[in-house]
Amino acid sequence: MNILFVMYDQLRFDYLSCAGHPHLETPNFDRVAARGVRFTRAYCQSPICGPSRMSFYTGRYVSSHGAQWNGFPLRVGELTLGDHLRAAGMDCYLLGKTHMAADKDGLERLGIDPASQAGRRQSECGFDAVLRDDGLWAQGPDGFYDQKTSPYNAYLSAKGYAGDNPWADHANAGISDGQIASGWMMQNAVLPANIREEDSATAWLTTEAIRFLNRVKGRWCAHISYIKPHWPYIAPAPYHDMFGANHVPAPCRHETELENAHPVYKAFLDGKVAQAFQRDETRGAVIPAYMGLIKQCDDHLGRILDHLEASGQAEDTIIILTSDHGDYLGDHWMGEKDLFHEPSVKIPLIIADPRPEADAARGTTCDALVEAIDVAATCADIAGGSVPGHVLEGRSLLPWLRGETPDWRGYVISEYDYSARPFAEDLVKDISDARLFMLFDGRYKLVHAEGGLRPMLFDLEEDPDEFHDLCKSGPPNQALERLYNCLAEWGRRMAQRVTLSDDDIRARRGRSARRGILPFLFDGSEVPDALTQFYRGPAPNDFTDQS
Amino acid sequence: MNILFVMYDQLRFDYLSCAGHPHLETPNFDRVAARGVRFTRAYCQSPICGPSRMSFYTGRYVSSHGAQWNGFPLRVGELTLGDHLRAAGMDCYLLGKTHMAADKDGLERLGIDPASQAGRRQSECGFDAVLRDDGLWAQGPDGFYDQKTSPYNAYLSAKGYAGDNPWADHANAGISDGQIASGWMMQNAVLPANIREEDSATAWLTTEAIRFLNRVKGRWCAHISYIKPHWPYIAPAPYHDMFGANHVPAPCRHETELENAHPVYKAFLDGKVAQAFQRDETRGAVIPAYMGLIKQCDDHLGRILDHLEASGQAEDTIIILTSDHGDYLGDHWMGEKDLFHEPSVKIPLIIADPRPEADAARGTTCDALVEAIDVAATCADIAGGSVPGHVLEGRSLLPWLRGETPDWRGYVISEYDYSARPFAEDLVKDISDARLFMLFDGRYKLVHAEGGLRPMLFDLEEDPDEFHDLCKSGPPNQALERLYNCLAEWGRRMAQRVTLSDDDIRARRGRSARRGILPFLFDGSEVPDALTQFYRGPAPNDFTDQS
Repeated sequence: MNILFVMYDQLRFDYLSCAGHPHLETPNFDRVAARGVRFTRAYCQSPICGPSRMSFYTGRYVSSHGAQWNGFPLRVGELTLGDHLRAAGMDCYLLGKTHMAADKDGLERLGIDPASQAGRRQSECGFDAVLRDDGLWAQGPDGFYDQKTSPYNAYLSAKGYAGDNPWADHANAGISDGQIASGWMMQNAVLPANIREEDSATAWLTTEAIRFLNRVKGRWCAHISYIKPHWPYIAPAPYHDMFGANHVPAPCRHETELENAHPVYKAFLDGKVAQAFQRDETRGAVIPAYMGLIKQCDDHLGRILDHLEASGQAEDTIIILTSDHGDYLGDHWMGEKDLFHEPSVKIPLIIADPRPEADAARGTTCDALVEAIDVAATCADIAGGSVPGHVLEGRSLLPWLRGETPDWRGYVISEYDYSARPFAEDLVKDISDARLFMLFDGRYKLVHAEGGLRPMLFDLEEDPDEFHDLCKSGPPNQALERLYNCLAEWGRRMAQRVTLSDDDIRARRGRSARRGILPFLFDGSEVPDALTQFYRGPAPNDFTDQS
Repeated sequence: MNILFVMYDQLRFDYLSCAGHPHLETPNFDRVAARGVRFTRAYCQSPICGPSRMSFYTGRYVSSHGAQWNGFPLRVGELTLGDHLRAAGMDCYLLGKTHMAADKDGLERLGIDPASQAGRRQSECGFDAVLRDDGLWAQGPDGFYDQKTSPYNAYLSAKGYAGDNPWADHANAGISDGQIASGWMMQNAVLPANIREEDSATAWLTTEAIRFLNRVKGRWCAHISYIKPHWPYIAPAPYHDMFGANHVPAPCRHETELENAHPVYKAFLDGKVAQAFQRDETRGAVIPAYMGLIKQCDDHLGRILDHLEASGQAEDTIIILTSDHGDYLGDHWMGEKDLFHEPSVKIPLIIADPRPEADAARGTTCDALVEAIDVAATCADIAGGSVPGHVLEGRSLLPWLRGETPDWRGYVISEYDYSARPFAEDLVKDISDARLFMLFDGRYKLVHAEGGLRPMLFDLEEDPDEFHDLCKSGPPNQALERLYNCLAEWGRRMAQRVTLSDDDIRARRGRSARRGILPFLFDGSEVPDALTQFYRGPAPNDFTDQS
């Protein structure tokens, strides 16, 4: 089997028709869901691109891989999906975004040439990059956000789009009064992007993916990783006006959330992103564009599905559809992501396995508590029939796909490091304490804040919209101690014994004694003679007399 | 300043005259203590060689570096003392033992030639190895314990000692009835080793160290790492009979320890090592030899101190004396190490800084709660005046050496992974749960056992000999919850964000916006024009009409 691992960036779990969206029809996502299992309680390991993706690609919690925020380099040598798959004889390719930052100091310290195969893989998070484009060719007084070259920008230039940065001037901008109307200004989200639809980022990457599928040989996993529907929120025609004011839901927010808000939540609420999304005109402009971008993603997913079927690859290809995190879109008075309310931390996850053993669960949903790190474990399981559990902290989802009901985890974890935010200086003494841990057990959602700040607690059974933080006042909830015990257990997990598996350790037992380490003998009668034979015999020359 | 970092293997904290031993005079250890500070509550990070040393050499907890037991390879890329010192312009050399196992798979995966400078350093735990000899040239039916060549064995052969393995036949064996009387059989500990004293391991390494000191240039840290007084317990004349039955203390043990013993403790009690040390004849033979080996270490320490003084290096050299763990010697019904009673987990630690700023504390003791990982932080501080706290988990001890009283940690941690022991299969369902965590706050010592086993708790104020495990029965001690909260806090520590320091993160703040990432604009009026200038201008060709 091969693996098509497709990621959309910032795609909310509930903006798909198979997930019950009232207005948005996504027949191609639904088509995959109908062939597989849709996981209804899947959570990302951190509600922001970089660390979330590093968890997807390493199969390890954020605190385990350490790349805790956007642009924090993943340390050299950290094992990745690519390492595990290649060890099982499967190639692992990338087309699109990873948000990987290479550990340049580490490469230099270890004498690894960044241009060597090992160096390239270390720099591309373990993938063999067919093409890498993080999709944000942003530009400011300090230069470009992404210092690498952009295959997509090069494509646009080659297609005749004008200017140094057609990503900004065309793909992510409309036109207003003859002027560039940048997608960065959200009022412009209502405009069509100044680009032919077939040249937009989603279309371009899809075309590249199909080209790749036409030429790939051997056993492969391909990570097709779209930047959209991530901001800048602006869609090419005809997607820019498929949705309008009548499709914009009321924000899921409550005045009580603003009262005595947790200091970290309050810091985000006071930030520019949240302030923008607290305005109705922002939501009114952005949400239809966001829906249009998703609709476009769905149409292009259809191209890939059609191609797989037409080429005969469909029956050999397991498809994984997911996202790195959600998008608040004004819910909880927030924009973007960063915190742990469901619209931000929950992710869509659909896996379709065409093999007969997956027939039992085909077209069903699964409400097990799933984590993003389970994707890498699932891929390793597909590739090799086993999961290196001493490295991968996730669990294979294949049993669920077969309709089994394995013993499963009792809680999911997500983390957020806000040390990069200036307000961290005001909230914690040491910015290494600018960290949040979410633990959700299926009912209660605990958010622990390091550095002496109080926790947050939501009861999603009584309060599914997460308006009422039970730690604001009143007696401590009885669940709190139990949740904290779970968090402590998780904190003690063995995450770094990555050089030996359990079976390696079992195989080594007794080896020391068989190699002559015998620190328990009084007279040698305790063990078979074979173990002590090298320590017996006629004495050599006598040097014991020092007198 | 240079650093002479001397380690003795398995040297109990209380087997020095400066630490109050009633019979053993160690004037040279005492000489260093008189010039510096003796830390009376220093603890190793794991009471067994390999993981303890990896913590010394990485400055990180065992759960952070992951090399959790003897021979478990330290993963490639893990930062070491050598990396930190070289970054500060100080070389870092090894003479002797490290117990390092190279991550061969990792080296191969990263394309690092083990013979290259980076490959050698990765294989030698970050040191530039002047000579590496782990000091256990054991031999059994499965071959040698140490697969590497032994510089010490080569030396012995060159000196005319007979046989393939003079380490075993001479340095660690006596003669009895014309036969080799191996030091592995503890009854032979009373014999003199069949070797000239000047050729014994301690003497040989000292001679090599002095040679090294005569030729080293530049700023340096030298790790002189003796295998002794570690087993095999056998000393060359005249050290073999300096001590006798009248110097063997009664074992520190109590019948109550055996009643309803914690299952992990019981598994060790039932093991061959403990069984051997529960016999009086074992202690009677071993302890005098152990004392003799320490006395020999002290004499050879004197050679080094004299050399430093004679060569004028003493005034430029900070001396650190320590051990990787202790030795039960029959206390608590145990032999060797492995568990967390004081004779096993507490280590000697003496640091002498010849600089005037250390005069205030010269010759004093310090009872702060110190961990082995503090040694690397102290060395980094000496080398560069700062400690990279995002990597090193220990803290510099220099303030204590200056007589200051810094805010300090409230507890120490030690860990033990018993997955390599066959009994792990009987005690825990998953051998990844075969782990113990000790947390000692200066009064209470909690030992948490993973995998659903009960904890152990000792109150060292009421029960300094640690006979009474308060978790055996009765109501839970009130301290337990507090100690568990501390353990949980420790479990959440940030240990893997090793590619960026706090200051690196501060310096990056706002960079994204200055590079054009502006996901918070409604109309652009929110920010200075300079930030949006690249997103404005006359519209290029119009592609917005898709009709």
